[in-house]
Amino acid sequence: MAQGKVACLLGEGFEDSEFRIPYDRVRNEGYQVDIIGPKAGMELKGYRGKEKVKADKGIDEVRPEDYIGLLIPGGYSPDHLRADQRFVEFVKRFDALKRPLAAVCHGPQLLLSARLVRGRTLTAWPTVQVDLELAGAKVKDEPVVIDQNWITSRKPDDLQAFSEAFVQALRKAERTTANGEVRSQV
Amino acid sequence: MAQGKVACLLGEGFEDSEFRIPYDRVRNEGYQVDIIGPKAGMELKGYRGKEKVKADKGIDEVRPEDYIGLLIPGGYSPDHLRADQRFVEFVKRFDALKRPLAAVCHGPQLLLSARLVRGRTLTAWPTVQVDLELAGAKVKDEPVVIDQNWITSRKPDDLQAFSEAFVQALRKAERTTANGEVRSQV
Repeated sequence: MAQGKVACLLGEGFEDSEFRIPYDRVRNEGYQVDIIGPKAGMELKGYRGKEKVKADKGIDEVRPEDYIGLLIPGGYSPDHLRADQRFVEFVKRFDALKRPLAAVCHGPQLLLSARLVRGRTLTAWPTVQVDLELAGAKVKDEPVVIDQNWITSRKPDDLQAFSEAFVQALRKAERTTANGEVRSQV
Repeated sequence: MAQGKVACLLGEGFEDSEFRIPYDRVRNEGYQVDIIGPKAGMELKGYRGKEKVKADKGIDEVRPEDYIGLLIPGGYSPDHLRADQRFVEFVKRFDALKRPLAAVCHGPQLLLSARLVRGRTLTAWPTVQVDLELAGAKVKDEPVVIDQNWITSRKPDDLQAFSEAFVQALRKAERTTANGEVRSQV
């Protein structure tokens, strides 16, 4: 039985399936997923009009160290979120814990704003791949790219493989915890 | 009386006022403005729901050298356009002519994809400012930044100053032509 909570950073105009598919998959594995938005209770809509969800928590209420994994869906959401320094700081602090961080499509824009990409290997939506490359990242045009704690994908077509890789990484993180090892480096 | 045509690169989800205000201003100065989209006649909508326009020309029909100036409105449009290599090539070839190029908000994303920003000085929407800086540009957080043939601005609030600076640059380019000097370096 899975333990630990997963954080999902979500803003207005997310790509509907890039939230729904990994969200459902991770919950089906027994993890609790907190949808974290600008404010608790805020209604957030996918830009395709298929998904409408409420934020479980506001960004001011949460601490990175309370989560075992981080999910960043794409669409227009990441560019909205990274305009708010609180989300950028959350990502920076979460990444420092070296726990599984999964970002798809425009999701890596938050990694750009957190100035974490130089020297890292990842993928993203094709237009964002250029920004990553210019920022000094090594970009691969593949369905799933894993680099240390990062799991990244390009687009909705990649979501099955993306969700599977994220779940594997969460299970591994859980096992590490169960063995009594220190989960955090902070 | 102004001569010469101005190109406006426009895609789905542009920021309504970032098209309308400079577009009207430039036309009021006597310039013809061609709205260039993926296909001639294609209907393009602003994301605020205030503007709905038809593309005058498709990107396959136009040549950079036929225009005296280039306008790139922001919103979601630039990220859609830069997914299409034909728009990226148009920007690259237009810039090589050293004629006035005005980009606002997310507009500079096209300059990123054309790999033109390293060492240049410009501004953009705050989230794009980070991408530009990481790509080696010098970023200023000011209403209008002019660097050689580039005129860039950050957001709708900057549009009056942005439009004014663009018109001044077009007039200067027209005068150069009127004096019989070679307008193009290509």
